[in-house]
Amino acid sequence: MVTSLPRSKTKKQAAGPAAAARKKPTLNIAMVGHAFMGRAHSNAMRQVNHFFDLPFEVVPKVVVGRNLERVEAAREQFGFEEASVDLDAVLARQDIDVVDVATPNDTHGPISMQALRADKHVMCEKPLAMSLKEAKAMAALAAKGDRKVGLWHNYRRSPAASLAQRMIARGDIGKVRTVRAVYLQDWLASADAGWSWRNTKAVCGSGAHGDLNAHLIDMTRFLTGLEFVEVCGAMETFTKKRKDGAGKSRPVDVDDALLFLARFSNGALGSFEGTRVAPGRKNHNRIEVSGEKGSIVWNLERMNELEVFTYEGAEDARGFRTIMCMDGPHPYAANWWPDGHIIGYEHTFVHTLADFVAMLKGKKVFHPNFDDGVAVQAVLDASLKAAETRRWVKVPG
Amino acid sequence: MVTSLPRSKTKKQAAGPAAAARKKPTLNIAMVGHAFMGRAHSNAMRQVNHFFDLPFEVVPKVVVGRNLERVEAAREQFGFEEASVDLDAVLARQDIDVVDVATPNDTHGPISMQALRADKHVMCEKPLAMSLKEAKAMAALAAKGDRKVGLWHNYRRSPAASLAQRMIARGDIGKVRTVRAVYLQDWLASADAGWSWRNTKAVCGSGAHGDLNAHLIDMTRFLTGLEFVEVCGAMETFTKKRKDGAGKSRPVDVDDALLFLARFSNGALGSFEGTRVAPGRKNHNRIEVSGEKGSIVWNLERMNELEVFTYEGAEDARGFRTIMCMDGPHPYAANWWPDGHIIGYEHTFVHTLADFVAMLKGKKVFHPNFDDGVAVQAVLDASLKAAETRRWVKVPG
Amino acid sequence: MVTSLPRSKTKKQAAGPAAAARKKPTLNIAMVGHAFMGRAHSNAMRQVNHFFDLPFEVVPKVVVGRNLERVEAAREQFGFEEASVDLDAVLARQDIDVVDVATPNDTHGPISMQALRADKHVMCEKPLAMSLKEAKAMAALAAKGDRKVGLWHNYRRSPAASLAQRMIARGDIGKVRTVRAVYLQDWLASADAGWSWRNTKAVCGSGAHGDLNAHLIDMTRFLTGLEFVEVCGAMETFTKKRKDGAGKSRPVDVDDALLFLARFSNGALGSFEGTRVAPGRKNHNRIEVSGEKGSIVWNLERMNELEVFTYEGAEDARGFRTIMCMDGPHPYAANWWPDGHIIGYEHTFVHTLADFVAMLKGKKVFHPNFDDGVAVQAVLDASLKAAETRRWVKVPG
Amino acid sequence: MVTSLPRSKTKKQAAGPAAAARKKPTLNIAMVGHAFMGRAHSNAMRQVNHFFDLPFEVVPKVVVGRNLERVEAAREQFGFEEASVDLDAVLARQDIDVVDVATPNDTHGPISMQALRADKHVMCEKPLAMSLKEAKAMAALAAKGDRKVGLWHNYRRSPAASLAQRMIARGDIGKVRTVRAVYLQDWLASADAGWSWRNTKAVCGSGAHGDLNAHLIDMTRFLTGLEFVEVCGAMETFTKKRKDGAGKSRPVDVDDALLFLARFSNGALGSFEGTRVAPGRKNHNRIEVSGEKGSIVWNLERMNELEVFTYEGAEDARGFRTIMCMDGPHPYAANWWPDGHIIGYEHTFVHTLADFVAMLKGKKVFHPNFDDGVAVQAVLDASLKAAETRRWVKVPG
Repeated sequence: MVTSLPRSKTKKQAAGPAAAARKKPTLNIAMVGHAFMGRAHSNAMRQVNHFFDLPFEVVPKVVVGRNLERVEAAREQFGFEEASVDLDAVLARQDIDVVDVATPNDTHGPISMQALRADKHVMCEKPLAMSLKEAKAMAALAAKGDRKVGLWHNYRRSPAASLAQRMIARGDIGKVRTVRAVYLQDWLASADAGWSWRNTKAVCGSGAHGDLNAHLIDMTRFLTGLEFVEVCGAMETFTKKRKDGAGKSRPVDVDDALLFLARFSNGALGSFEGTRVAPGRKNHNRIEVSGEKGSIVWNLERMNELEVFTYEGAEDARGFRTIMCMDGPHPYAANWWPDGHIIGYEHTFVHTLADFVAMLKGKKVFHPNFDDGVAVQAVLDASLKAAETRRWVKVPG
Repeated sequence: MVTSLPRSKTKKQAAGPAAAARKKPTLNIAMVGHAFMGRAHSNAMRQVNHFFDLPFEVVPKVVVGRNLERVEAAREQFGFEEASVDLDAVLARQDIDVVDVATPNDTHGPISMQALRADKHVMCEKPLAMSLKEAKAMAALAAKGDRKVGLWHNYRRSPAASLAQRMIARGDIGKVRTVRAVYLQDWLASADAGWSWRNTKAVCGSGAHGDLNAHLIDMTRFLTGLEFVEVCGAMETFTKKRKDGAGKSRPVDVDDALLFLARFSNGALGSFEGTRVAPGRKNHNRIEVSGEKGSIVWNLERMNELEVFTYEGAEDARGFRTIMCMDGPHPYAANWWPDGHIIGYEHTFVHTLADFVAMLKGKKVFHPNFDDGVAVQAVLDASLKAAETRRWVKVPG
Repeated sequence: MVTSLPRSKTKKQAAGPAAAARKKPTLNIAMVGHAFMGRAHSNAMRQVNHFFDLPFEVVPKVVVGRNLERVEAAREQFGFEEASVDLDAVLARQDIDVVDVATPNDTHGPISMQALRADKHVMCEKPLAMSLKEAKAMAALAAKGDRKVGLWHNYRRSPAASLAQRMIARGDIGKVRTVRAVYLQDWLASADAGWSWRNTKAVCGSGAHGDLNAHLIDMTRFLTGLEFVEVCGAMETFTKKRKDGAGKSRPVDVDDALLFLARFSNGALGSFEGTRVAPGRKNHNRIEVSGEKGSIVWNLERMNELEVFTYEGAEDARGFRTIMCMDGPHPYAANWWPDGHIIGYEHTFVHTLADFVAMLKGKKVFHPNFDDGVAVQAVLDASLKAAETRRWVKVPG
Repeated sequence: MVTSLPRSKTKKQAAGPAAAARKKPTLNIAMVGHAFMGRAHSNAMRQVNHFFDLPFEVVPKVVVGRNLERVEAAREQFGFEEASVDLDAVLARQDIDVVDVATPNDTHGPISMQALRADKHVMCEKPLAMSLKEAKAMAALAAKGDRKVGLWHNYRRSPAASLAQRMIARGDIGKVRTVRAVYLQDWLASADAGWSWRNTKAVCGSGAHGDLNAHLIDMTRFLTGLEFVEVCGAMETFTKKRKDGAGKSRPVDVDDALLFLARFSNGALGSFEGTRVAPGRKNHNRIEVSGEKGSIVWNLERMNELEVFTYEGAEDARGFRTIMCMDGPHPYAANWWPDGHIIGYEHTFVHTLADFVAMLKGKKVFHPNFDDGVAVQAVLDASLKAAETRRWVKVPG
């Protein structure tokens, strides 16, 4: 059953001759899932055309879920035209251009592949899959067709990360030698924090690892352009049981923290830590990259600022610079507000969608895509295995 | 002439029985002006219902300007239903509930008053007026009727400012004694920066003073709850001539920087500086308030973080805390993203609009309103006069 | 084989042929006063030859006070050879080369002048004098003779301040336009903090002003090379009575906080605040200087770090740099520890003494000297008068 | 009246009746080695009695080296009474109480043991030994006698580290769960940096590892009170050849960077990195410890500041506090300057010596001692072996 809302005279349709010249083809998106990530994705859909000049007008067309009442509430809240509980029917529609997979982790694979088979472009929430095998199957399927695929590793497009990648790519810090990356949160620091599906291996695959280290791995690949070659690691679950909503004690079978070391394709070394038990760290995703000629520090909580050191200029005037990245020459800055007016978490989704939509015309490959997802999954799997088996594990190439 | 776009089946109208139960009355906004501030205001109008549970559904109904083509482009870009170049006609409409004044400074007064006389609620961009006399006339007019009025002093509702105000109001830092406030930018540091209307007294009244010190004054009143009693100051125009777009040298008759000292109603002292010639400072709006029992530091460029010192706790463990303000217990945090996921400049407008809309029902007075605008204008006038006359000037009460 | 060197009166005397070549003339210092500042001065005397290659060997010869037992304890503690309560006799001695005035403020003038008349070099603790008149008399007396005089405005020679001055002098930030300087402490924030001579105008002349603003004024002159032309200000005593050691309530007749604005010789503007009632600020002496081409920020509590902004380099890579100033090319760094090993408060006295001693040979003029003290006093007097009379006051040239 | 005290061999000897009461026994120190570390050690010897009230008067008695001319120059520079090239003779003297071993790494063991056999107290520069076997032999020898032994792991007694240890020991952050520790320098980042003995395994045992990770290991044991149980790691030499002073290319057979993971006695996890090739990091020794109830961050370059988070106080007022550690209630603060006046690198040696000297009377055990050195060496060895063999290695208990 579908709450079908025939899209009315959208503003461009009614705008008359002047607007006609500007009239763009629509890009209808069906979003599957409508929890937290759906909130961020749908925001990007509503906002992107107001701030980016794109070849399409993005339309949040239909939101798909399981429970009609909740889907309908999501439709209202998130600004979709229609709500549906029939995914098959939605995928069968000719007017749906893109499927956005915003469901829990264990359905990313099946839904993405179903959408690809239905000849839709696909944007998938991270992690791409529950296993490397599944991820590879997804990437293989995507490679067969001409549909574009993307992963919502949105932090890549935070202001400072985009700038950092540009700088490293143009050689500002030289060849990369060491990476130190941590993603620290504290919402499970207290033994009183409740049990949830996020504490269950069957649903999540892992704990802090898949949730947080996945970001570090993707960002490190993005920033440095390097591949992980081998890893070793250790993990711990500090609180072994937690109470669920009903007050029942439930076992926790995923990691609270997982640390690993890595060697990269060019011989560089890195250390990584994902933890949910670091008091005071709310969303402390910080990556420091040292190269031959300089260093950069990126920090999600201060995503508008980048710290950079190089040996340029007078010898007595060197130091880490704090660059306010929402300034004229910086990536995406011109699309938003005047110099020095910061943006936030949700904007990274808008940037991701804008770039994805811009690439739907032409042959450019969007990143991060399913191949990137495979690469991340390979490192996640290898480092989890390394932690479990207490030995170095090669990352499959 | 109006490009009237009959609003089509809005989503709620077509949502059927389930949605009907949730159906809210619309609140139609006419926005006058569509330059930079219009961009921020309209964003708030589009976003507010997606993140706040309000008694009305806000509708960006009509955008009003002078040049039809540009107004129409703004309508498209900002997501209004209609575009118009006939303000009188728009004000005459019964279906317009709120007029948002987003025009250049010199028309804030006339348009706001015209809107009030047309029985509309009014949200006015700051500064309220070009002179204290005009500001008072506006406030007097507002006081006569029952229409609600507000000023877009949006920084009040940045995460850290809202928290700071809550803390000071509940006594965390005790009675306020000293305030140090600076708003530093650098876009006029270079003598090569071009001339614009912002360098002309006839249009702006003043330079950095009205633009930047207005924010400091409003924020100081908001944070401390104190009134300015008397001021002295000094100003300077470091670059006396600049070239306009045509390469013609034009005189600059407004201040590049204006510094002033103030004495407050409770005997506290403060220093203030607005400047556009501080290299490296993009949008450095920083206010430090010291009280009897503690201190707070607010900084727009890190608006998600508040620094606070109190004498609480173990004597050897005291220090300025950096509070990540997008966390569970903080103002507005629950409306956005998970803990530690930051928001940006535009959200302060969403907060402002959300609070204004929430207050349209009931008798609560919204702040900042025209009375607050009068108070800010009184301090601006007094400090400009103080700088011009080189003496202490009482701020009219 | 042992080179056994029985410790003689001074190590160099017994060093034999090899040492003889290195043998330096001694420079005997008599230090008058032995409270807190004496502790810092004497440390500099003991340390300076171990870290600086100077034309003299500095000898902490005699410490002079009023109470024999306490002077003797100071001699022991501070490492002087002799203790004395007879200043006249000490000044009459031929073997005393330098008199260091480390007494309370009200005797700086008389003792310095007495020492000059006795043909001694003089290093005087700041403030130079209790009044501008006295300061000028001191400077005039110093100018008549050939004895070198210096003021212990030691912060000038903190690592970051020395570097900042070098940078500004060589034009890194261009012509100075604005200065914002605060010296914030909190030891009088509590009304329970006890009364002391520091709360008495008769002894100190003023409160936070003479104590803290004196530093800001000297540092601003040092960093910028500019002179203060006129000032206006305001001051407040928030706690009007405090209890002395005996529990007796005593009036406080000096300022807790004094803020002033200044105009400089080149048209630049500045704001200044000295306060002892800013909770959480222990020794927060921070000066930000903005020029045409850049800005610097100096902060005593992080005196090993300088923040600098310039427009050099790639446009997208600009930001305030944090320079670790104890590194190869920085002032004084080579005299201490390896790169990145910080120094502290007391080292600024060692640097001051080292430079003073180095200049005793030759005709170079040491700064800060009594003329600098006069300049500081002139600004202190003018700003205190401005605060008292509530008007702008010219700083006598 | 003058208390004229002709300077005698030691000031206390001539101080007369009053001083006699204060007269303390001397503690004569023989320092072996006089390069960089000798500079820091001797400074501590000269300074310690001026700032700490100790049961002994510390006398820098004799400095011992190999080259007479250079030893003599060191004697002069560092303030020793005597210079010697005959270690045996010095150790045979009855008047030598303490032997300070400040030689290159490969002689720490032999000289320390020789000194112990000569019945001297021993302070040894870190690292304790070249191998775990040697370290254990040293500790065993020390355990046999009643002489006190200490290691110059001076960072333990930096202001913030001392405070951090106090806080963790009293339970402020609860049971420790994760540690992230890095010691980053950049003096070998450039391939042009010259070859030295520090690049030779035969002399140093390892590169960044023994030099920098040794500090991290000691500090982690000190701060947390935990023991390392097992480790795995990876290392890299990025520049394989460097030119020596004569321009000859020499192989580099030690690590530029070594990273390792560790599991601790209580199940906690940690990551560690020592590198000399991190551009912009001069002496960036930073350790973050997360416990059940809070976190602390210590940073050598800002050793006067400690960052601490706990869940105490109002829920909306929590954040990492930056504690200025040179304040009334903090360790060692009262021995130096007023609140907020910072100290530096060399003071950590003064603190170490002060505590060592204070413990020479009584039965208290000084830390860090040779047992601590053994523990550090065990972790260094294990992590080097882990990096070489690419597997987890147990740390011998």
